[in-house]
Amino acid sequence: MSCLKLGIPKGSLQVATLELFARAGWKITLSSRSYVPTIDDPEIECLMVRAQEMARYVETGALDAGITGHDWVVETGAAVDELSELVYAKQRLARVRWVLAVPEDSAMRDVRDLEGKTIATEVVQITEKYLARHAVKARVEFSWGATEVKVPQLADAIVEVTETGSSLRANRLRIVDTVLESATVFIMNRVAAAEPWKREKAENLILMLQGAIAAASKVGLLLNVHRDDLAAVLGVLPALKKPTISALSDPDWVAVNTIIEEAVVRQILPKLKAAKAQGIVEYPLNKIVL
Amino acid sequence: MSCLKLGIPKGSLQVATLELFARAGWKITLSSRSYVPTIDDPEIECLMVRAQEMARYVETGALDAGITGHDWVVETGAAVDELSELVYAKQRLARVRWVLAVPEDSAMRDVRDLEGKTIATEVVQITEKYLARHAVKARVEFSWGATEVKVPQLADAIVEVTETGSSLRANRLRIVDTVLESATVFIMNRVAAAEPWKREKAENLILMLQGAIAAASKVGLLLNVHRDDLAAVLGVLPALKKPTISALSDPDWVAVNTIIEEAVVRQILPKLKAAKAQGIVEYPLNKIVL
Amino acid sequence: MSCLKLGIPKGSLQVATLELFARAGWKITLSSRSYVPTIDDPEIECLMVRAQEMARYVETGALDAGITGHDWVVETGAAVDELSELVYAKQRLARVRWVLAVPEDSAMRDVRDLEGKTIATEVVQITEKYLARHAVKARVEFSWGATEVKVPQLADAIVEVTETGSSLRANRLRIVDTVLESATVFIMNRVAAAEPWKREKAENLILMLQGAIAAASKVGLLLNVHRDDLAAVLGVLPALKKPTISALSDPDWVAVNTIIEEAVVRQILPKLKAAKAQGIVEYPLNKIVL
Amino acid sequence: MSCLKLGIPKGSLQVATLELFARAGWKITLSSRSYVPTIDDPEIECLMVRAQEMARYVETGALDAGITGHDWVVETGAAVDELSELVYAKQRLARVRWVLAVPEDSAMRDVRDLEGKTIATEVVQITEKYLARHAVKARVEFSWGATEVKVPQLADAIVEVTETGSSLRANRLRIVDTVLESATVFIMNRVAAAEPWKREKAENLILMLQGAIAAASKVGLLLNVHRDDLAAVLGVLPALKKPTISALSDPDWVAVNTIIEEAVVRQILPKLKAAKAQGIVEYPLNKIVL
Amino acid sequence: MSCLKLGIPKGSLQVATLELFARAGWKITLSSRSYVPTIDDPEIECLMVRAQEMARYVETGALDAGITGHDWVVETGAAVDELSELVYAKQRLARVRWVLAVPEDSAMRDVRDLEGKTIATEVVQITEKYLARHAVKARVEFSWGATEVKVPQLADAIVEVTETGSSLRANRLRIVDTVLESATVFIMNRVAAAEPWKREKAENLILMLQGAIAAASKVGLLLNVHRDDLAAVLGVLPALKKPTISALSDPDWVAVNTIIEEAVVRQILPKLKAAKAQGIVEYPLNKIVL
Amino acid sequence: MSCLKLGIPKGSLQVATLELFARAGWKITLSSRSYVPTIDDPEIECLMVRAQEMARYVETGALDAGITGHDWVVETGAAVDELSELVYAKQRLARVRWVLAVPEDSAMRDVRDLEGKTIATEVVQITEKYLARHAVKARVEFSWGATEVKVPQLADAIVEVTETGSSLRANRLRIVDTVLESATVFIMNRVAAAEPWKREKAENLILMLQGAIAAASKVGLLLNVHRDDLAAVLGVLPALKKPTISALSDPDWVAVNTIIEEAVVRQILPKLKAAKAQGIVEYPLNKIVL
Repeated sequence: MSCLKLGIPKGSLQVATLELFARAGWKITLSSRSYVPTIDDPEIECLMVRAQEMARYVETGALDAGITGHDWVVETGAAVDELSELVYAKQRLARVRWVLAVPEDSAMRDVRDLEGKTIATEVVQITEKYLARHAVKARVEFSWGATEVKVPQLADAIVEVTETGSSLRANRLRIVDTVLESATVFIMNRVAAAEPWKREKAENLILMLQGAIAAASKVGLLLNVHRDDLAAVLGVLPALKKPTISALSDPDWVAVNTIIEEAVVRQILPKLKAAKAQGIVEYPLNKIVL
Repeated sequence: MSCLKLGIPKGSLQVATLELFARAGWKITLSSRSYVPTIDDPEIECLMVRAQEMARYVETGALDAGITGHDWVVETGAAVDELSELVYAKQRLARVRWVLAVPEDSAMRDVRDLEGKTIATEVVQITEKYLARHAVKARVEFSWGATEVKVPQLADAIVEVTETGSSLRANRLRIVDTVLESATVFIMNRVAAAEPWKREKAENLILMLQGAIAAASKVGLLLNVHRDDLAAVLGVLPALKKPTISALSDPDWVAVNTIIEEAVVRQILPKLKAAKAQGIVEYPLNKIVL
Repeated sequence: MSCLKLGIPKGSLQVATLELFARAGWKITLSSRSYVPTIDDPEIECLMVRAQEMARYVETGALDAGITGHDWVVETGAAVDELSELVYAKQRLARVRWVLAVPEDSAMRDVRDLEGKTIATEVVQITEKYLARHAVKARVEFSWGATEVKVPQLADAIVEVTETGSSLRANRLRIVDTVLESATVFIMNRVAAAEPWKREKAENLILMLQGAIAAASKVGLLLNVHRDDLAAVLGVLPALKKPTISALSDPDWVAVNTIIEEAVVRQILPKLKAAKAQGIVEYPLNKIVL
Repeated sequence: MSCLKLGIPKGSLQVATLELFARAGWKITLSSRSYVPTIDDPEIECLMVRAQEMARYVETGALDAGITGHDWVVETGAAVDELSELVYAKQRLARVRWVLAVPEDSAMRDVRDLEGKTIATEVVQITEKYLARHAVKARVEFSWGATEVKVPQLADAIVEVTETGSSLRANRLRIVDTVLESATVFIMNRVAAAEPWKREKAENLILMLQGAIAAASKVGLLLNVHRDDLAAVLGVLPALKKPTISALSDPDWVAVNTIIEEAVVRQILPKLKAAKAQGIVEYPLNKIVL
Repeated sequence: MSCLKLGIPKGSLQVATLELFARAGWKITLSSRSYVPTIDDPEIECLMVRAQEMARYVETGALDAGITGHDWVVETGAAVDELSELVYAKQRLARVRWVLAVPEDSAMRDVRDLEGKTIATEVVQITEKYLARHAVKARVEFSWGATEVKVPQLADAIVEVTETGSSLRANRLRIVDTVLESATVFIMNRVAAAEPWKREKAENLILMLQGAIAAASKVGLLLNVHRDDLAAVLGVLPALKKPTISALSDPDWVAVNTIIEEAVVRQILPKLKAAKAQGIVEYPLNKIVL
Repeated sequence: MSCLKLGIPKGSLQVATLELFARAGWKITLSSRSYVPTIDDPEIECLMVRAQEMARYVETGALDAGITGHDWVVETGAAVDELSELVYAKQRLARVRWVLAVPEDSAMRDVRDLEGKTIATEVVQITEKYLARHAVKARVEFSWGATEVKVPQLADAIVEVTETGSSLRANRLRIVDTVLESATVFIMNRVAAAEPWKREKAENLILMLQGAIAAASKVGLLLNVHRDDLAAVLGVLPALKKPTISALSDPDWVAVNTIIEEAVVRQILPKLKAAKAQGIVEYPLNKIVL
């Protein structure tokens, strides 16, 4: 049987990735006795690999495909195909940023102020390219972690990843500039990507992962409306996608079923009520493929 | 930008309140480094305040609105508006009672038996008013907590709050009388309640909180039924709200979609089956605005 | 009031059973101070009883009904009625097997190789009948638990229960034969089963438990399709149950609502999309009675 | 190299046993991947075995020696040598009792009241012998555990083990009679006990275990005393063992060093002070061999 | 038998108090089913009581004695005898301070700056007396807890207890003044204190508690020294208490045994070595009565 | 005041290091709000630094001294002084080894078999020097961790650190060769090491750390012996250090006090008893400076 060798990111993305796969329809089970997880799909073989090392192993073909950050593809310079962004991260469904940060009370305000300084970071290549773009010369030191506590004692500035900035603020650091935006990506070995079976397997996997990501921030909304009020009600609904309008046995009424961002429900619902929608029900979703 | 200063009850109601807000559509995040939570709505500013102190701070305008118990509004005598009951408590979606309780084997059977006795309670004002109503003179002592273990060594009786009575039974106490029924309430400062923007913001918030509370104990029920059996099937469904009946492509059949209390599903489902309903499916709900 | 005395299995099945009852609509609450749980149904009285002892107490009438494994009905030889299988187990919705197992590197390949050997097991009666069927004479020792670690030091082979085989593999054991397949069963005392009220109560309970079990592995799928594509879309859907097709206000389109196994969604969804289904939404279910 | 095969009791005695061995000087390490623990003594090979099964495996020689309860030696009727009592149990350094217990409000007051009744117990043999000694006929049923919750619904009385009686009281049971007193014992296979090397190894092991048990409830007491007050001070000290009196450089004073039960220190110390002892210091002990 | 009714402080001092009693020789066991702990001394009856309420119940004689803070004796104005300070607190063996604190960036620098302001505190009486002493008029509000997060939103200043000041610093508060120093005290009802048996029981209890407190911060030091070097070695040891010097079998050498503060060992040890002390051994202590 | 800037290793050595400092007499407190710990010595300033980065920061003078592994001094090639070995590690008081390991069933038996292969390791420099010494050419890849699970899928061999080898065995790896032995070392910046105050502070710190390490594996032994038996008893005691023999008031008896390895007590005690030693007591130690 054909088989797709797939790298799952170990570490900070691990929990979010396993949950995403579960919602997408694949159960990955980590054994306490082995780092090779089992997956309930005979066509996939998983391996837990650090996000930092993923692109390197996909490039060499040790893995056919993998999930990692765009940042690590750039840092390692690996020649792989980025098939799709999967916009989720450790805490939220969102992109992350690598930022140049300095102590809150530092005088440094601009990348040019770093001339001759020491920068600690986990992404030495990305940082050096960034400095080169700005024609700044500084010493970039590889940091094994806990980078944000290194200033000011051990370094003058850092280049560190952040989702919400809260860890930086907690360490009283100030962001000077964004060095790189990154999201989780689905990468593929170039030879594997050219094999039809592997390519289709990967595309279907991405379709389901995207379906689960889309559903996580959306909900279904079901409501009844008198035909006279239909235009008003539809005017309130976001134009994202045409709602499904179905006939009821009472010909004066229709049922409206639509999908909207959960975050806007609290704004929409009072307006729907004002527009005379009735029996408004919000229900949860597992997956969406529009 | 206008902003509603909202007090969230710290302590026993805290977890239930944060979960309710999450279901209603607002994510409140407690930081381990601060008691000022963040909320994902720029129009609201939250503060964690003890339920006991909430009414006092809403009265003075330090807060525009707050969530607390009706009991503490009464106890503090604060002049605030109670906009809405939100019927949930620590353990259940239900009211609580402040009760007069004595040891199981006590001879006291009636409030009048307390004449000259000592009563320990967290609600000194409520208890004194209650005694006054019954023309009983007794010594009421403020208790800092763990009131139910104070009898008989440190007090003769207590006035204590209870949801299910199980903690009282576990301490071998007997309820003599109900002193006050209470539920969680949404209270508002009277000046703030008169400002249109703040009032509307509060009303919309209450609408969503009520929607989430309503959904927590209800489910959606979807079933197909032959037109010949429709009357029988509808006869089984509770009359709470008219079900939505929609046409199917097969003109002899209709689909019925309705919302019912989860607690009655186990009684209704066997009857629906007996009435020839088919493809009965129960699905979960997030919010309901009927 | 009539009352059904129902035994709930204590131990490895306990958590799964309480969750199943919750999904079916009955909340069973274990008190830390008592082994008699409360249930929110005045017509049922629960008792926590070990699965191994359940059939014995249902046989004598100490309980009207109970949930246990078919294996323990066989082992105890109790004369009870098995009303229904409830296919769930500790970890998965699946049957379990009692297997004859030996060390990976043992020479034993067949039940006949056990002649004269020692077998440790929790099911002495089942094992002795199995050996008798194969005309093998061996010493069967009752094991108080942790049976799989007794070979080779304390026994030559074991008869042990397994869901997935992973615990056996982890202990480097090899399965030689299946001794008994078993599933969770709902059993009833024969006298109680003949009383109409108790019988109907039990049947309704089973209906709801089965409804919850069915829903656990299934999801709802909602999609819109142009009438021209309907046949193609329906061709992709599993034939399990006729989907509900409802009219939309746009007469060229219909909505399809169907229930399918969650495990096949990942195969079906790409095909539905290829067949031009639109607005595909997967939603979770609580109960299903088809 | 010679090797003693030693059974360590798995289950309720396990933690206390491993701690005792550690204090006695042997570190036993349980691996999460195997039930065969490692011990830092090449002359001992450990196996985790249930206390209930220990005597059986020591009798057959699968183990040379083991630690179990005297009760299980009696219950299984195994022909083994009990070399030494090791007076410790799950919670305390004390004996346990198997008692006949009935519901608090039961009319049963004496073993003879059990005639014709049902008794649930884990020790069927011990219970049947006890009934035979009292010429009482009753049905004794094997209980898989949680025996104390079986009365009154599933049995009329139980025979259950207790250290302090608190679990019985918590279940509102009343003790009718003591069936058997038991302590932890070090047992040995009779053939192994006759081999000099194994016997000496076992004896030395017991010496150290006893030394650690003795030290657990005792402390060292060091004090200075003027020769004029020595008799008075010595009069206060328990006569358990002659204290060590050593000369100080000041010839008028001596130092007294003694070992006493920790439980009596609170009574002795005020008296020592009254008798003019000075610089009284209590220090902890690891092992004692008097 | 005579019996001393003793209040044990529930809450923040509870763990430290139970540990102190254990080290002093009394084992107090909290039952999960009752707030009346058991103590292994038939002459003492314990009750868990909040530190805030202790003095009140000792004053009325509901308790003979109790352990609480000096602060709460002052706050309640209870007429009780403070028999002894027991210098320990939640985190450290040290006194606590009630301090007047304001936000770090507040302009208030002195108690007089509080004129007309609002102060939140758990010790309303103490605070009002303090303000009266300084002739400052301010509004003092009772705070149910979490006082340090009330400034600046809900109060202008607070009077709050602190051991190390770290919680205040973490909340960015600045200490303006110390309102009251406090330590844990052993208090006694005045009538009970006049009864010889109860008085002696209390005194002996205090002796042992003090012995355990003294030992917690001290260690024993044992060393050998040549008589020629004795003066030099003794010169290094703190003069706290004369060390015990004992003769060795080699008449040129003596052994020195002394008790010193653990905190100074790291300074003393290098000096002892320089002074030619040999075989220096530090050992732990349980109790000290000098 | 002079101050020693000291690096404490963050990560796997952290817990063991903080415990060691506590036993040596310095309390280091990690704040949850900061990575700069506090230490109860105004002459020391601590910083948590990864063991891998420690030598680099000590070399540059960002730190005066630090605790790290000898391995990381070698790997970074930092020019620092190794003042003292501190023989403790994550699990045990012992050295660690970096070993070359391959899958159990690999054909590789010797470093020369690695020619042309891929080796994953955290210590790239050490590994490359090792290969150069053996004139083997292989590709050495930096591994971010979890190195032992990279063979055989992602690498042919690894160079990994091990204390007991159990993690390697659990991953079914076989050790081919030892690449480097390492222990924890106390390193110092060369300029700082030449400053008398800093040097003496460091030396005293090392003295106390060594004293605590020595005490951890040793115990005190106290026994009485008749002068006639003294020679025999002394013959049994290890010759490590001359025991302290002190006169007792009974001139025929002496007391012997000695320090021995805890691991040999179980062998010595039975012999001491056989040699007629009496009142043998083993007691715990905090620190030893012989």
